[in-house]
Amino acid sequence: MSDSNAVEALVQALKRLPGVGIRSAQRMAFHLLQHDRAGAQVLATALQAAATEVQHCERCHTFTEHAICAICSDPRRDSGLLCVVETPADQSAMERTGAYRGLYFVLMGKLSPLDGLGPAELGLNKLFDRAADGLVREVILATNFTAEGEATAHVISEGLRQRGIKPTRLARGVPVGSELEYVDLGTIAHALVDRR
Amino acid sequence: MSDSNAVEALVQALKRLPGVGIRSAQRMAFHLLQHDRAGAQVLATALQAAATEVQHCERCHTFTEHAICAICSDPRRDSGLLCVVETPADQSAMERTGAYRGLYFVLMGKLSPLDGLGPAELGLNKLFDRAADGLVREVILATNFTAEGEATAHVISEGLRQRGIKPTRLARGVPVGSELEYVDLGTIAHALVDRR
Repeated sequence: MSDSNAVEALVQALKRLPGVGIRSAQRMAFHLLQHDRAGAQVLATALQAAATEVQHCERCHTFTEHAICAICSDPRRDSGLLCVVETPADQSAMERTGAYRGLYFVLMGKLSPLDGLGPAELGLNKLFDRAADGLVREVILATNFTAEGEATAHVISEGLRQRGIKPTRLARGVPVGSELEYVDLGTIAHALVDRR
Repeated sequence: MSDSNAVEALVQALKRLPGVGIRSAQRMAFHLLQHDRAGAQVLATALQAAATEVQHCERCHTFTEHAICAICSDPRRDSGLLCVVETPADQSAMERTGAYRGLYFVLMGKLSPLDGLGPAELGLNKLFDRAADGLVREVILATNFTAEGEATAHVISEGLRQRGIKPTRLARGVPVGSELEYVDLGTIAHALVDRR
């Protein structure tokens, strides 16, 4: 759009974002340059800072600016509980519940061989070693309840069982606040089997 | 997401982009930091460059790194034709047709009083002066065929008529390659009235 190389370069750079096509990229570039140059500067600075400062926690693999993240280095957390999640966003959702006081292992993805994400990329051996370190009493699998998340949980579960560890999985069931009529049948079936 | 301030700042900055909510912003931040740090650097550089270098062409108002854009300063263009478009993306669409060799006036928006975009913000007085400069033979209104684009075209048309200039408007009609059955009735009605 336009004869400006700088605008064209910005559109191409925005197009690299997931879920952003050429139209969205053009709209974003137009908005930033026409209505929100301050926003463009803020975003440039935030990108620069995050790309240089953010690394992975040595213990749980989540994003952090430090060698060990705040949760892993918090002595008040119960180091006998280890919750396995796919992403920092999932970890954040667990934290917001306020119902969990243990530690995490963040896979930073899910098993997806077509995308080149295998057990090595997710650090599963490190997870297995951690689970068998004598400190961990319980491994809670909290990967997503999608096909890929379930497959990931299954592979981790098998690996742990070979080491004599039996992990737990988040309960499947009817979401809080929902009406049975609108819940899918697979969920109701699971809730029925797991009734308590 | 995560305890990283840098990641949180990045998510907030991405959320300022049009059409990007908290979930998309988190997904973008995760993608950039986990899979495409080079992309993050490229985007930061492109934003920085565009925000500092890109200005508006003094003649047509489109984005450019120069005082006068490449099209306005091209002596081979027909300076007797002035095409009024809403955005650089629309201008780019006109250019790609290869069917237009005149000049442009880019409104950089459309009349939208609720967003604070009035005739002054779109530079309509400058457009009227330009249309009456003796060089321009024809003003072609190529704003979008949306309610706001039509209103903008109407206001410009009225302003030009007060100065004794009768602008033309892009033809409304059936899109090339479409089947009548699937074209909306308003479009068919217009195509019928404007038949040639």
